[in-house]
Amino acid sequence: MTAPASGTPAASAAATVLAPAPPRTARVAVLGATGYSGQEFVRLALDHPGVTIAALVTREHAGRPAAEFLAGLDPRAATLPAAIAPDALARLLADGAADTVVACLPHGAWRSLAAEHGLEGRAARIVDLSSDHRDGASGYAYGLPELFRADLAGATRIANPGCYPTAAALALAPAAAWLAGPVMVHALSGISGAGRAAELRTAFVERHDGASIYRAGSGHAHVPEMERSLARAGAAVPIGFAPQLVPMNRGILLTANAPLAQAIEPAAAHAAYAARYANEPFVRVLPPGEWPDTRNVRGSNRCDVAVTTLHGGRTLLATAALDNLVKGAAGQALQNLNVLLGLPETTGLPRHGSPW
Amino acid sequence: MTAPASGTPAASAAATVLAPAPPRTARVAVLGATGYSGQEFVRLALDHPGVTIAALVTREHAGRPAAEFLAGLDPRAATLPAAIAPDALARLLADGAADTVVACLPHGAWRSLAAEHGLEGRAARIVDLSSDHRDGASGYAYGLPELFRADLAGATRIANPGCYPTAAALALAPAAAWLAGPVMVHALSGISGAGRAAELRTAFVERHDGASIYRAGSGHAHVPEMERSLARAGAAVPIGFAPQLVPMNRGILLTANAPLAQAIEPAAAHAAYAARYANEPFVRVLPPGEWPDTRNVRGSNRCDVAVTTLHGGRTLLATAALDNLVKGAAGQALQNLNVLLGLPETTGLPRHGSPW
Amino acid sequence: MTAPASGTPAASAAATVLAPAPPRTARVAVLGATGYSGQEFVRLALDHPGVTIAALVTREHAGRPAAEFLAGLDPRAATLPAAIAPDALARLLADGAADTVVACLPHGAWRSLAAEHGLEGRAARIVDLSSDHRDGASGYAYGLPELFRADLAGATRIANPGCYPTAAALALAPAAAWLAGPVMVHALSGISGAGRAAELRTAFVERHDGASIYRAGSGHAHVPEMERSLARAGAAVPIGFAPQLVPMNRGILLTANAPLAQAIEPAAAHAAYAARYANEPFVRVLPPGEWPDTRNVRGSNRCDVAVTTLHGGRTLLATAALDNLVKGAAGQALQNLNVLLGLPETTGLPRHGSPW
Amino acid sequence: MTAPASGTPAASAAATVLAPAPPRTARVAVLGATGYSGQEFVRLALDHPGVTIAALVTREHAGRPAAEFLAGLDPRAATLPAAIAPDALARLLADGAADTVVACLPHGAWRSLAAEHGLEGRAARIVDLSSDHRDGASGYAYGLPELFRADLAGATRIANPGCYPTAAALALAPAAAWLAGPVMVHALSGISGAGRAAELRTAFVERHDGASIYRAGSGHAHVPEMERSLARAGAAVPIGFAPQLVPMNRGILLTANAPLAQAIEPAAAHAAYAARYANEPFVRVLPPGEWPDTRNVRGSNRCDVAVTTLHGGRTLLATAALDNLVKGAAGQALQNLNVLLGLPETTGLPRHGSPW
Repeated sequence: MTAPASGTPAASAAATVLAPAPPRTARVAVLGATGYSGQEFVRLALDHPGVTIAALVTREHAGRPAAEFLAGLDPRAATLPAAIAPDALARLLADGAADTVVACLPHGAWRSLAAEHGLEGRAARIVDLSSDHRDGASGYAYGLPELFRADLAGATRIANPGCYPTAAALALAPAAAWLAGPVMVHALSGISGAGRAAELRTAFVERHDGASIYRAGSGHAHVPEMERSLARAGAAVPIGFAPQLVPMNRGILLTANAPLAQAIEPAAAHAAYAARYANEPFVRVLPPGEWPDTRNVRGSNRCDVAVTTLHGGRTLLATAALDNLVKGAAGQALQNLNVLLGLPETTGLPRHGSPW
Repeated sequence: MTAPASGTPAASAAATVLAPAPPRTARVAVLGATGYSGQEFVRLALDHPGVTIAALVTREHAGRPAAEFLAGLDPRAATLPAAIAPDALARLLADGAADTVVACLPHGAWRSLAAEHGLEGRAARIVDLSSDHRDGASGYAYGLPELFRADLAGATRIANPGCYPTAAALALAPAAAWLAGPVMVHALSGISGAGRAAELRTAFVERHDGASIYRAGSGHAHVPEMERSLARAGAAVPIGFAPQLVPMNRGILLTANAPLAQAIEPAAAHAAYAARYANEPFVRVLPPGEWPDTRNVRGSNRCDVAVTTLHGGRTLLATAALDNLVKGAAGQALQNLNVLLGLPETTGLPRHGSPW
Repeated sequence: MTAPASGTPAASAAATVLAPAPPRTARVAVLGATGYSGQEFVRLALDHPGVTIAALVTREHAGRPAAEFLAGLDPRAATLPAAIAPDALARLLADGAADTVVACLPHGAWRSLAAEHGLEGRAARIVDLSSDHRDGASGYAYGLPELFRADLAGATRIANPGCYPTAAALALAPAAAWLAGPVMVHALSGISGAGRAAELRTAFVERHDGASIYRAGSGHAHVPEMERSLARAGAAVPIGFAPQLVPMNRGILLTANAPLAQAIEPAAAHAAYAARYANEPFVRVLPPGEWPDTRNVRGSNRCDVAVTTLHGGRTLLATAALDNLVKGAAGQALQNLNVLLGLPETTGLPRHGSPW
Repeated sequence: MTAPASGTPAASAAATVLAPAPPRTARVAVLGATGYSGQEFVRLALDHPGVTIAALVTREHAGRPAAEFLAGLDPRAATLPAAIAPDALARLLADGAADTVVACLPHGAWRSLAAEHGLEGRAARIVDLSSDHRDGASGYAYGLPELFRADLAGATRIANPGCYPTAAALALAPAAAWLAGPVMVHALSGISGAGRAAELRTAFVERHDGASIYRAGSGHAHVPEMERSLARAGAAVPIGFAPQLVPMNRGILLTANAPLAQAIEPAAAHAAYAARYANEPFVRVLPPGEWPDTRNVRGSNRCDVAVTTLHGGRTLLATAALDNLVKGAAGQALQNLNVLLGLPETTGLPRHGSPW
């Protein structure tokens, strides 16, 4: 038996902040249920005591039983509704059969669906996994609890952070006050990060047994999101980005470096990181000399972080590993939903990784 | 939330058989906790309501905290004891701090340890994952509940079946009465099936991006175990075996063929299999036209089975997929332990696979 | 330096048969140059002394330089023509700039293109890698030299065998006279065998770290081709087929079993196979006790074969490994082209594998 | 047919420098013939017109035929000597049966073997793939022709560069004059870079489907070698290093960043790199907007380089991909041997990659 999750300080703190008690169970409509983050959300939700899957919304499979499009599901062991098309969702929200939207859609799609079917106003709670509302302009709170938990108090709409930006923010935020110049972020992603679509660029043979860089520089869509988080954490510095695809299903492995205004000893950097995340159940600062491995966080909602300084303490080297489908997508969505529901943040979320 | 597992007919049946109620919680000493099946057992046990890990026994790491040798573990989220050497186990069993042994050791090791330290008589329950006691000669019941559940009534010592033999038995047993001659079993295994040892033959570069056959014929150690199960199921026929290693971490994919005494239509074969396993929560007979994929059972205790006949119904083609570390090892050990404890067989065991 | 290929007995034999000498250099138009077998053909042809790439035909990339659609090519090290569309090919053939067609197209495409543009009659030599002309009905010789070399004498049109059928025929032909009943063929294929198209079923995440069976039974398109070869080799028996996809780029690993009319000792079976292929440079019969590994033939035009018998010699177990893009496609096409050109069969074709 | 390699300007230049003509054929003793770089050297040497394998030196396999320890080899297609132990090598060198040593041994091993058996003085030519003589102190020339070709004139002993240092030097040297501060090198390596030994850390299951960082900082053994090359190229700046292991057999993918003294436009950076490597057959500067992929150089002796600048031109982002077993080891050894033999540098070395 695991140690009771609710006993962690951070979780209690989070729960305390959010009284008076909202309803403890969400009837969730999952949009984009066939994508990788959508399927991961359903898988995690099946073991979550505060979530009922009320609808699986997917235009392509509307009318078909869940086991036909959710890989791995044993239909005898889960009572899931058949898929519905987006236009049926408005009715479900209107009559209260669903009260929460979790949108696991490509960028732009939720915004446009919501407008088309008048969905935005009918859902008690919305967690949007796309990048559409991450700029803070449209009333969605940015759902990265470890850094911006206060934003979530009272929120009902949440923009779930991207996988690269989550890793970058957790790796860099504790050092924000020290930074003296541009940050360079190098990051590896597993192939599920590219989404579930029939494309030659993500075909097995094209991705197997090799590694490649893509859209390096400052032009990647995730750069502004990373810069915003870092600025809110205290460092208004530009970010350069070198994203790379490596032949694994899941995982982000990030290494970032930056010049520091003053020399910081490696031990001091480590101590500051350890203190910053001491009460965070989903961030583990590794002991000095250990470095992140995506396997250790595979399937979990944890982000492992390690830090040191080089060159007499004048260069920061910060690193992080997370599972892009869990802490980088579906798990973080559930973590945010836990906050919205007033549940301990760790409810229903794995903290141990399954390395192989 | 998943459908309550205890409601499945098979689980109820199993529970009924085993009254009067034994203690519902096991204090388990895991031997060989650093191997792949040992680590998998710990991972599953951490989410199991009827199991407490009382000891992690590993000579190599004795004295070290669990998080140092169990990959992926977040030490803040699990209260596990530090490792102990085998000689400390006798005392734990003697004073009742541990009452159950789960031996995840190489073949021969449990038998010899038990003799050396006088362990055999001190444990209330033993599940041995090695092949040492699978021949039925030494008082260990063969723990394949779907086929030999009656054997487990009242048992306290269980020989956990091998991964290949579990797949073979589940794929072939329903057809046993039809078989007219030798069975040929072709099976692919992921590399974790070869154990966790520093060997060149299981090195990444030696196993990646290729497939190979090994010890084909009748000489593989698993052949007698397969023949015994098939004989008990009703078919005293010889088995030929072509095991193959493919570049994946987990999974067995088995295809077997055999001549049939009389013509059986594909639909009749499917119907017989479906009927045979209708009440088995951990065996799913796929609809006609679908074939097993190891991804669909990955991380679960499920075995997916599909069957057809060829050549005018005179040749059986039976197939199965399971996760060698779960249904082929640690999960089946927990399933057996559930039986020993009088718990529903499905307690704490995943039925959905996590395909990627 | 390698031993001179032309010295092998088989190659000499082949050269002898085909006098008087045809032209020794082919000006080849490659159709479907962007697919996996098309790219492999170009790669092999660049090192072949008797082949000049006269045209790269691909509708999609017409007008673009070769380095933009042939992965890995260093444009400074190869002088290749820019791509042309199919309709430009007729002219090239008419004016003699190209004299040979190698069609690496999906099934049906060459036949239809040839008809549309009147290509069939204009090419001095045609090698078709699709299954369109493998039934022997349309005047194309079946290009499996090791079994049907005599067919190629004087031929100018060749149907290049499929990858599964090549492996099956080479594994089973020496035993044809012994077979007493249906043959069951189990075979693993790397993902490149499914072709180069944007499809979800061949996406990295869908294929990685797992194995699956597809279209098992007698319905796979390759079954009749296998049965034809086996019948021509002397055994008119039905074949059952269980094809499986495993997570590797290249390779076929085949295991087949069948009942034998009389008992054959393993040593006798091995001796017969060794004798049958003694003079074949591209088939290696492994020593007793060794089994095929796709890595050992990776990138080569070799097929490794191993055989034994079981159950007192009454069951044949025949196995083979080859590289589906080389001996199973582009390499065999070059081998056939060597025959058409009167060159030693081994010209320009790797016999050593590159295992990693 | 490929364009004739000897026609490339760089190769001609190299040949010109090294007159008068030394012997054009080397009788090579390969030490460490069973490791990954040793086997790769043999594979490349079999197709090289100026190299004869005179001895395969491996204590472990002494007396055994080559095909038993060289994976993929077809013994019928290559006439290789049986393995000998190191103590038999002195005699071969003494009587002239071998005149060249290529040492593919772990670090320290060649130095110690040479001393023990008095080998150093007997070989006309030595190429050492270990790091033992890379510091320039012991009379071995550092064999990175693209940057330090002049050093090789008249040399007979060559220290072959490391795989990471080769990629770092080629990526950074053209920018050396611009650098204003510490360089951070992030680099991914395939698992063959860790050598061929029975170790748990390179086991398939431990490395598959995940990525990890190791020995990040300044402490990796390769950092001084990288700093030396960069200093010789004109930039005496410290280097930080974050090496990472990703689940592929071969390949280095390197991304490096550094502050620049003055703003350099991306186009100017690209132009400088393109000019620097215009005559280098084994370095390809990718067009702007394209980034390296290890697949494109797989199996070749090529290094693909791409560069840009960020943050108004004040940050360099330089990237490179190479095959660690070819340009990072065995191929570069042959390139160096070509120089020693007065052959065109490109002789016998693939320039096209085989991506899958």
